[in-house]
Amino acid sequence: MNIPKTSFPRIVIIGGGFAGISLAKKLNNKEVQVVLLDKHNYHTFQPLLYQVSTGGLEPDSIAYPIRKILKDFPNFFFRLAQVKEIKTGDNTLVTNIGNLEYDYLVMATGSTTNYYGNREIQLNSMAMKSIPQSLNLRSLILENFEQALLTDQYHEREALMNFVIVGGGPTGVELAGALAEIKKGILPKDYPDLDTRKVQIHLIQSGDRILKEMSEKASSKAEDFLEGLGVQIWKHTRVTGYDGKTVKTDTDTIFETATLVWAAGVKGAGIRGLDAKDVLARGNRIRVNEFNQVMDHDNIFAVGDVACMQTKDTPRGHPMMAQPAIQQGKNLGENLLRLLDNKPLKPFVYKDKGSMATVGRNKAVVDLKNIKFQGVFAWFVWMFVHLFFLIGFRNRMVVFVNWVYNYIRFDREARLIIRPFNRNYSAFKD
Amino acid sequence: MNIPKTSFPRIVIIGGGFAGISLAKKLNNKEVQVVLLDKHNYHTFQPLLYQVSTGGLEPDSIAYPIRKILKDFPNFFFRLAQVKEIKTGDNTLVTNIGNLEYDYLVMATGSTTNYYGNREIQLNSMAMKSIPQSLNLRSLILENFEQALLTDQYHEREALMNFVIVGGGPTGVELAGALAEIKKGILPKDYPDLDTRKVQIHLIQSGDRILKEMSEKASSKAEDFLEGLGVQIWKHTRVTGYDGKTVKTDTDTIFETATLVWAAGVKGAGIRGLDAKDVLARGNRIRVNEFNQVMDHDNIFAVGDVACMQTKDTPRGHPMMAQPAIQQGKNLGENLLRLLDNKPLKPFVYKDKGSMATVGRNKAVVDLKNIKFQGVFAWFVWMFVHLFFLIGFRNRMVVFVNWVYNYIRFDREARLIIRPFNRNYSAFKD
Repeated sequence: MNIPKTSFPRIVIIGGGFAGISLAKKLNNKEVQVVLLDKHNYHTFQPLLYQVSTGGLEPDSIAYPIRKILKDFPNFFFRLAQVKEIKTGDNTLVTNIGNLEYDYLVMATGSTTNYYGNREIQLNSMAMKSIPQSLNLRSLILENFEQALLTDQYHEREALMNFVIVGGGPTGVELAGALAEIKKGILPKDYPDLDTRKVQIHLIQSGDRILKEMSEKASSKAEDFLEGLGVQIWKHTRVTGYDGKTVKTDTDTIFETATLVWAAGVKGAGIRGLDAKDVLARGNRIRVNEFNQVMDHDNIFAVGDVACMQTKDTPRGHPMMAQPAIQQGKNLGENLLRLLDNKPLKPFVYKDKGSMATVGRNKAVVDLKNIKFQGVFAWFVWMFVHLFFLIGFRNRMVVFVNWVYNYIRFDREARLIIRPFNRNYSAFKD
Repeated sequence: MNIPKTSFPRIVIIGGGFAGISLAKKLNNKEVQVVLLDKHNYHTFQPLLYQVSTGGLEPDSIAYPIRKILKDFPNFFFRLAQVKEIKTGDNTLVTNIGNLEYDYLVMATGSTTNYYGNREIQLNSMAMKSIPQSLNLRSLILENFEQALLTDQYHEREALMNFVIVGGGPTGVELAGALAEIKKGILPKDYPDLDTRKVQIHLIQSGDRILKEMSEKASSKAEDFLEGLGVQIWKHTRVTGYDGKTVKTDTDTIFETATLVWAAGVKGAGIRGLDAKDVLARGNRIRVNEFNQVMDHDNIFAVGDVACMQTKDTPRGHPMMAQPAIQQGKNLGENLLRLLDNKPLKPFVYKDKGSMATVGRNKAVVDLKNIKFQGVFAWFVWMFVHLFFLIGFRNRMVVFVNWVYNYIRFDREARLIIRPFNRNYSAFKD
């Protein structure tokens, strides 16, 4: 892989998400060589992917070149690579661009969509975990309406204008809200020759409330907001199959739709060689101790979504969100430096900064430690926090301009089919 | 195609470029039915495509949804369609979404890359006439550097860092300048482990000067600018072949490169059924009279790049640029209304507003009727004019923010490989 051997120990980080980047920053200018591998050359700000899917933001403004984040870091190497296997016995990674030895390895591979083994749903549904996937969904939504104009078949047209979203977490809720706003504000103007009142948005949830990680107040308020926007919420309903036409559930209800968005679950993005049964916890996550160290592997660590640190407070590991990832990355950075100095390690302590979700214009829910609030003020807090955590001044400016424009004009202008999504062609689905 | 027959005459416009859009706007709110067909659902601001290729702008900010431009127009229909054939005898179009009858037909199909019959170059080179093509080029440029890091082979690395641009028109000049700025400002920081001083940018030109449509002063100043930036200009050199590795020319000079950008010519984008020998002029453009009417076809018109109006001042037709297209679209709009009112038509008179090209930061050349100037002021004029002609307030704002940022920071942040370009896969080339 053309990376020089130096006298410094080599730390290899797999993944440039929230965890990997915050870790790399901690290792800047220290006596280590850092190699970061990622299959993309950019960091993705995942919380805003739903706005890309719905034409509110350009993909480029929620992505940031990894090389730029880490420029001027001495002893730092980035490689665009896909890791195929970890040979823990030889301290070696096998990748699509060659092998790489490590002294320390950090898994920051994040999570991937969990279809719970349902191959049919995996093949026919849309996911929203990456920028290419979000762009595919954007194209499909727009193509559906172009297609609906062309058909004389009543049922086909209804199915094209019917959107089914599975999963009542923040992704599902935010996407459903955005679609509802498009239905109201944009479709009637864009498609005067189509009866867009027929557009239906269904949000399906297996449990008894949406946003189940948040407070009951937040859940019920979010439901009110969604219903006010015309989203149909289905609780206690589990989707069991989708053949590209009909959604089957474990109740009597079925849905005919051309678009099923699967936001019903994620699992750790594991790699061969670190996938023994005792290494993995629920949801394909890697068991780690309080220092994010993988059991029985002194020089391998895992941080972020892929790590499962089971503590008294988090019997199932920390929530698979940005905050635990960022905090674990920072703590591990400090611990790796302590380890090299032969100092005792500092156990990870999660500071819960609260959680939030947005449903639409002036409609968000925020749970902080001591206060929970909903509505207009929550929405401004949500926007401020997201702008703050975006990487890069230019991205913040461009996102801000878009949001102000969209707010004033009730609009979302990035509704472009730049790469048509061919629904029979699954090469770009991952 | 599900478009209702009304008592109004139906005008079908093929193409939503500068000509098609300016024509459609003139027909707003008149007693006609307008159907606009385009293979994309957006209008592309082609003069800024090179900034997309070089990471300076997001694709979304130089594209604009056609439906949004023409919303609230009564009796207006847009369809996302590819026209396969024109059956002039039946006044019917054959498209991929069905047939469509017209009362009046306007060809506003623009132009496409002209390879002058060289199939090898067509297969192996990159073009920059559409947003997908520009994104492919952006990906390829970035992938080349990632690849260059991985190889031990001296010649392969050199070829990956060698960029050959064919064609000394505005596209070639602007792209060469932008690449030179990337070489200087971005590559050394992004690729500290690569000797980016080895990057070469060659601009090849068959004639004796670049920007040959502009004044000699503009040409020579642009050459100075490019050479100052380190671009190698080759005049009197005609590229004859490229097998994906070696560029052959009609002189002794060859170039080994992984990237050949073909900006050496365009031709009218014709459609079967309107391609008889006497209909077409040089460069596959459709001969039209002074009313943009196609000879021997009273109800068919052509405007913009695809139209060749041979007059005393323009023996080869008007330049294939935005201004003639916009002006012809407007004039034809008025003429179609006159035609329906049985009034005499107004011949098209081209108002040459001048031309301009930019080479880089503070470096542009502007030729107006009475004054020609180059340098910083020309550059500001260039930026102002391009911002002014962009469609949409949001696009203008986002482009403005990007330009200010890029100017202050010497940066171009949209250097993201969102859809890797597989150089063996040509499906997205057109």
